[in-house]
Amino acid sequence: MPAFAASELAARFGLELRGEDRKVSGVGTLADAAPAQLSFLANPRYRAQLAQTRAGVVVVREADADARDGTALVARDPYVAFARISALFERKPARPAGIHPTAAVDPEAHVDPAASVGPHVSIGARSRIHAGAVVGPGCVIGEDCEVGEDCELQARVTLLTRVRLGKRVRILPGAVLGGAGFGLAMESGRWINVPQLGGVVVGDDCEIGANTTIDRGALEDTVLEEDVRLDNQIQIGHNVRIGAHTAMAGCSAVAGSARIGRHCLIGGAAGILGHLEICDRVVITAMSLVTHSIREPGEYSSGTPLMDNRSWRKSAARFKQLDRIARRSPDGGKDNE
Amino acid sequence: MPAFAASELAARFGLELRGEDRKVSGVGTLADAAPAQLSFLANPRYRAQLAQTRAGVVVVREADADARDGTALVARDPYVAFARISALFERKPARPAGIHPTAAVDPEAHVDPAASVGPHVSIGARSRIHAGAVVGPGCVIGEDCEVGEDCELQARVTLLTRVRLGKRVRILPGAVLGGAGFGLAMESGRWINVPQLGGVVVGDDCEIGANTTIDRGALEDTVLEEDVRLDNQIQIGHNVRIGAHTAMAGCSAVAGSARIGRHCLIGGAAGILGHLEICDRVVITAMSLVTHSIREPGEYSSGTPLMDNRSWRKSAARFKQLDRIARRSPDGGKDNE
Amino acid sequence: MPAFAASELAARFGLELRGEDRKVSGVGTLADAAPAQLSFLANPRYRAQLAQTRAGVVVVREADADARDGTALVARDPYVAFARISALFERKPARPAGIHPTAAVDPEAHVDPAASVGPHVSIGARSRIHAGAVVGPGCVIGEDCEVGEDCELQARVTLLTRVRLGKRVRILPGAVLGGAGFGLAMESGRWINVPQLGGVVVGDDCEIGANTTIDRGALEDTVLEEDVRLDNQIQIGHNVRIGAHTAMAGCSAVAGSARIGRHCLIGGAAGILGHLEICDRVVITAMSLVTHSIREPGEYSSGTPLMDNRSWRKSAARFKQLDRIARRSPDGGKDNE
Repeated sequence: MPAFAASELAARFGLELRGEDRKVSGVGTLADAAPAQLSFLANPRYRAQLAQTRAGVVVVREADADARDGTALVARDPYVAFARISALFERKPARPAGIHPTAAVDPEAHVDPAASVGPHVSIGARSRIHAGAVVGPGCVIGEDCEVGEDCELQARVTLLTRVRLGKRVRILPGAVLGGAGFGLAMESGRWINVPQLGGVVVGDDCEIGANTTIDRGALEDTVLEEDVRLDNQIQIGHNVRIGAHTAMAGCSAVAGSARIGRHCLIGGAAGILGHLEICDRVVITAMSLVTHSIREPGEYSSGTPLMDNRSWRKSAARFKQLDRIARRSPDGGKDNE
Repeated sequence: MPAFAASELAARFGLELRGEDRKVSGVGTLADAAPAQLSFLANPRYRAQLAQTRAGVVVVREADADARDGTALVARDPYVAFARISALFERKPARPAGIHPTAAVDPEAHVDPAASVGPHVSIGARSRIHAGAVVGPGCVIGEDCEVGEDCELQARVTLLTRVRLGKRVRILPGAVLGGAGFGLAMESGRWINVPQLGGVVVGDDCEIGANTTIDRGALEDTVLEEDVRLDNQIQIGHNVRIGAHTAMAGCSAVAGSARIGRHCLIGGAAGILGHLEICDRVVITAMSLVTHSIREPGEYSSGTPLMDNRSWRKSAARFKQLDRIARRSPDGGKDNE
Repeated sequence: MPAFAASELAARFGLELRGEDRKVSGVGTLADAAPAQLSFLANPRYRAQLAQTRAGVVVVREADADARDGTALVARDPYVAFARISALFERKPARPAGIHPTAAVDPEAHVDPAASVGPHVSIGARSRIHAGAVVGPGCVIGEDCEVGEDCELQARVTLLTRVRLGKRVRILPGAVLGGAGFGLAMESGRWINVPQLGGVVVGDDCEIGANTTIDRGALEDTVLEEDVRLDNQIQIGHNVRIGAHTAMAGCSAVAGSARIGRHCLIGGAAGILGHLEICDRVVITAMSLVTHSIREPGEYSSGTPLMDNRSWRKSAARFKQLDRIARRSPDGGKDNE
């Protein structure tokens, strides 16, 4: 286990050291950290714990520094500083360069000698794996794909066809990129498939969660701009475009051809219908359904509040009568657009 | 890249050629197609693009043909015709017949010599893979399964046990069929599993999306009739039956023993409770929850519209008071069923 | 196919035999069981079928025994008794002890000689597989994991890092445990990852559904207590704790650091926001969103009822005006909290 002096961390991350210098060999919460560990205070809710914590070093913002009786590192953003520091204690699995003997690599594929291809991996024709990339156990890379420098496909990731990843893209297990989107046409009462001839383009520094699915485009590409962060079990339809630095929480879904702006936050299990446009800096709360384009930054919601089931049943029954109730109200419901 | 004359396409797909004959070697949107490409106009919203498009050939319906100044192919349904034509330009990966040397096939399994079994595939006892079927890299086929003629299991598909696929079934990566459904009984405060002794039967021409899950039946089978189309990340509970030609969009879910009719359209992330019946030709809009059986064809919805969060909070607070508000309305809320 | 006398079943499971002794060699529903099969009546809705059933033996509760004209086994809880009996007819795949030659096991991993490791499995450094455990085809076990005695990882399961399973845990295909949770901090307009240094702890007798994802903790562990039952496609965020004997239905999701009590039932596609606490014995109905902590046992709901789309549009439009409607009601909406 590595150990670092508080003074060393201050110098490395541009923080101010207050109190005596101390060594720490790990990190923990204010409530649980041991004296040889470092902790942090970001959320004011936990301020009361500052007096009790056994942590040897605490990262705080200036305003909280006086309340800390012991070694402190003062940061403009303690959570960011903590993230940087705790990365020093992260134990990453070794992923040696080279191709595992059990991998099946197409003769027309190209794997950089400085890439790591794990056990039971398949790589299809004309796909390229660049230097520093890790293709973990059980991944399947189809045809015409590109895995950029220093990408990490952790395990059991599938890139089906025409998927191009930028640099430092991290993909968690079970994700599927480049599947044929849900492109269907009805002919004489039966479905026929509309060929999906596009691909998926993923910008630098994106992250894609476990079991998330991203369909390839029909004619053009499905696109994630740089630094897009997708949590687990998200569904992205064909020809969607997601702007840089947008983050989507688990189980959210975007239907085909929708465009989402930059710096948006999409809550868990939220849904966005197809062909809509959402401008930059929009926040959608959890489980909301976006049914029309959004042109103003801000926070948007749908749904009803949680209630005890008995009361909810009464409100739900009245919801069905809402139009009638409104019409009988003193002004006759004249505002019904 | 193959190239086709417009006259050739007209003959092949029963279309009418207008204007001079031209060769095309690809397809594109009206906005982006090059002169050597073919495009189509199906959605009237894009009609204005007909005058500007550089596409060499455009598939249009009769009513739009006059607005096309250049080579046109006239079709009753331009989208269907386009789907057929663009399939000519789809580059499919070669899947040679035979069993990849890394595959693990049980001695009691049967693989037709004209089937293709990819790298790192497992096939369990008494399972049968028929002629023309493709079992892609990393698939796991358990015991007593059947993969019909010309099926395509693209990669990392699991058929757990007693899963029987008809002909031409296409399954995208990560799908899991035949898992034990959520069959539980409570005994003295602890859960016990109710054995799931049924299987899954999937009709001809069905398609099953990436990371979709279909549980096997408890005593009888879970059934998808022919030409059912399931998008990504759908959950189908045990003993569900889905009628022919029904399509379900991504992230929708059907609880155990529900029966869905033929030619239904289930919107994204919609939910259907267990033991319900939905008749033929029902449309459920996205994120709606079906809580009772539906006996009339038509469109059904639940939920509330998207609002800015501040306004939404006011409506949501009032939703809780709805019964009281209704009782105080001029007629005393007498319609409360 | 094994066969059992009704008297044998009565002795084995503590049931009372009524009528003549008979042998059965399988199980079925009341409607479909053959004379050589056993069935059961638990749901009073099916009581009328008791007179018509061809089943040779029927498990019933005392109150229904008189209505059965033929061999009956009387049980306090017929569904539990049926679950026990039908397990006798379940054909389980053989999983011989030992390591399949295609598996890739790190030299620093430990696999008990009485464990079964299937084809195309990877096991990382410092992971331990205990006696009786089954690691099915295509599973990926990362570093520092523990698979307890008699666990069953059916196929294509991923335990990424620091995942510790108790005894008899069953995990269905495609599940991913131990992925880095969605821990992000924003620095100068770009996301940075907050290292996720905790693990996942899963208690004895838990079950985890297909394609379900459970993130590892940030500093402490994500915890499932004993006998927790998770259906398919569930998402559990980092640092969540779920109490013993709680069951969650398919597609539900729990955001980071939420705590759920014991003996709770969470409906399908329900969502629980982060950092909330839910006490013991709470029921959440399907597709509800839990937005605040729950301190009283009981049933809770959100959402609106299903309506035909035309009527729903009217109610939805009025929902937007609810605050105004309430203010104009006879008492001026004075109850608006």
